[in-house]
Amino acid sequence: MTIERTEPGKRMSQAVAYGDTVYLAGQVAADTVGTGVTAQTQQILGQIDRLLHTTGSDKEHILSATVYLADIATFAEMNAAWDAWVSTENPPARATVEARLAGPEYLVEIVVVAAKGR
Amino acid sequence: MTIERTEPGKRMSQAVAYGDTVYLAGQVAADTVGTGVTAQTQQILGQIDRLLHTTGSDKEHILSATVYLADIATFAEMNAAWDAWVSTENPPARATVEARLAGPEYLVEIVVVAAKGR
Amino acid sequence: MTIERTEPGKRMSQAVAYGDTVYLAGQVAADTVGTGVTAQTQQILGQIDRLLHTTGSDKEHILSATVYLADIATFAEMNAAWDAWVSTENPPARATVEARLAGPEYLVEIVVVAAKGR
Repeated sequence: MTIERTEPGKRMSQAVAYGDTVYLAGQVAADTVGTGVTAQTQQILGQIDRLLHTTGSDKEHILSATVYLADIATFAEMNAAWDAWVSTENPPARATVEARLAGPEYLVEIVVVAAKGR
Repeated sequence: MTIERTEPGKRMSQAVAYGDTVYLAGQVAADTVGTGVTAQTQQILGQIDRLLHTTGSDKEHILSATVYLADIATFAEMNAAWDAWVSTENPPARATVEARLAGPEYLVEIVVVAAKGR
Repeated sequence: MTIERTEPGKRMSQAVAYGDTVYLAGQVAADTVGTGVTAQTQQILGQIDRLLHTTGSDKEHILSATVYLADIATFAEMNAAWDAWVSTENPPARATVEARLAGPEYLVEIVVVAAKGR
């Protein structure tokens, strides 16, 4: 099976597809200025949509998601964005835990594993 | 390869199988009242047994496990339940880290990836 | 597909290969005395090289990595070792979050999923 890397950098790739399974890098919001958890989650989910599209997948084909929240008390704020976005017909497995992220401006980080397919 | 979802809800599925690989949602104890880490871990491992059975797998076929403990000082209490349960012939890869979980009543959360097979 | 376990113990295996996909256990530094984050990361990356070699893989074939730092403020110290080691031609997807680890002597833990191949 072939390995295809999306947006490879010197430190990491934004996505790596191995055969038909796609591993995304942890996504944080690109623009954090003045944003809260719901807005950052919306940005992240948009980035995930874009990366999945690039790799030949989409949100209907997400297998698992790991959500890291800088403050677990914002669980409902994250879910406000998640529930509006997730495929209710084809929802992934998910785990959500608290973890401080690479910088204090980041309130949410999401990692997904997906299958290719549209 | 087909994607099969177990107990799909509006937010997530409890398990998603892609071909012969099964991704479980993060499992927390269903009944947390008056329980400690060992008892919650026992409940969670029972839930994992049940979900793996539903997807055509079992604990002998777990590939990797991620254990989140609300307090890493309870590492030994978690392991008391884990060590009694895990297949010593076919143990998975595992990582254990501290993370606060969706509610303060949750002391342990476990995510597993497994292969189909019995 | 067959499951192959590397260094199986009573609690976990250090690596589990399922077909051509390899799941490594969370790696922490074997020798933590007097070490900092960069040195521990170097040790861990060496252990990952060794385990991947044993399973028929190498760092060019890492699909995803999850880096846990006991203190996220050491992000740059971890990256000093990571950036010197990672394949800049074939970098994996990666996520880095803060999490306290099994003992206070552990400053870094890394989990990787890789593909077989050399």
